[in-house]
Amino acid sequence: MPVITIDISITSKEIKAALVKELTAKASEVTQIPEEKFIVLINEMERDNIGVGGKLLSEIMK
Amino acid sequence: MPVITIDISITSKEIKAALVKELTAKASEVTQIPEEKFIVLINEMERDNIGVGGKLLSEIMK
Amino acid sequence: MPVITIDISITSKEIKAALVKELTAKASEVTQIPEEKFIVLINEMERDNIGVGGKLLSEIMK
Amino acid sequence: MPVITIDISITSKEIKAALVKELTAKASEVTQIPEEKFIVLINEMERDNIGVGGKLLSEIMK
Amino acid sequence: MPVITIDISITSKEIKAALVKELTAKASEVTQIPEEKFIVLINEMERDNIGVGGKLLSEIMK
Amino acid sequence: MPVITIDISITSKEIKAALVKELTAKASEVTQIPEEKFIVLINEMERDNIGVGGKLLSEIMK
Repeated sequence: MPVITIDISITSKEIKAALVKELTAKASEVTQIPEEKFIVLINEMERDNIGVGGKLLSEIMK
Repeated sequence: MPVITIDISITSKEIKAALVKELTAKASEVTQIPEEKFIVLINEMERDNIGVGGKLLSEIMK
Repeated sequence: MPVITIDISITSKEIKAALVKELTAKASEVTQIPEEKFIVLINEMERDNIGVGGKLLSEIMK
Repeated sequence: MPVITIDISITSKEIKAALVKELTAKASEVTQIPEEKFIVLINEMERDNIGVGGKLLSEIMK
Repeated sequence: MPVITIDISITSKEIKAALVKELTAKASEVTQIPEEKFIVLINEMERDNIGVGGKLLSEIMK
Repeated sequence: MPVITIDISITSKEIKAALVKELTAKASEVTQIPEEKFIVLINEMERDNIGVGGKLLSEIMK
């Protein structure tokens, strides 16, 4: 029962559905664990809550 | 100082309070670590952010 | 499909089995989500890898 | 800078390399975020540390 | 590419920017890994979602 | 009770002690939350378990 967690900035429902579908399919293919055993958790984060190299992503992408 | 993290779909305050109370009591009883040492973090997730078997939980539960 | 993650210092197999059994049962009872939907991940950590109040647990428990 | 974390039972280096390569490629394709921005963390766990439906995976797979 | 994740109650943008800046600088200094390699994820949580010693933080801080 | 989790490659005890001490001190100073409330969890990972831009860190650093 593998768990895949994705920490990512805010994302549309279409992209979330595609992430769940495609990452589950690929991970199942690579590991030979059946798709129905996979759980995917998408942890959407505001750009004020992500830091890269010491700066908020909201400042970097201004 | 054990940390228990629960990833779960959106939940009422009553259930969250009960989860914190009951899981802390049980984990303390099993491990013999005092209750006051436990931290519980409840990470509530929208059903659009949880995937099971390659499908969004929001689609599965329609 | 809730996921319960426990970060804890090194623990015996018996205690891990009891944690999985008891926390799943309690969480299922509180949330009314069936037991078979729960995944529990036990992340055992050395006392050199846990800090409390700025000190390693391995130093505190000497 | 998305972070993909995979909690999974013990896995060979070949499968870990394939997971990193394939999940990064797929996630990049779906999100249109360049591959070099992705970090993948593989958290390998013993079957004594994973519980499904209240039982250790090491007991279920006996 | 170290990842620092902070689970904390709701926090102002100023404090989040300072956490990202200061923790990245300190962690880089201690580990000798360049600042630009660090990712910081701030996971803000409501006080109804944090439990300490079996009680919700929202109850403790009333 | 904030929790700081660090995912990082294998690290010496001296560096882990310094990370716990310094990150707790800085985070306490920035947030005005007392040091004794902080928990730090250091999740050391093999370079075969970290992927950057689709490649294992063990391959990148060869």
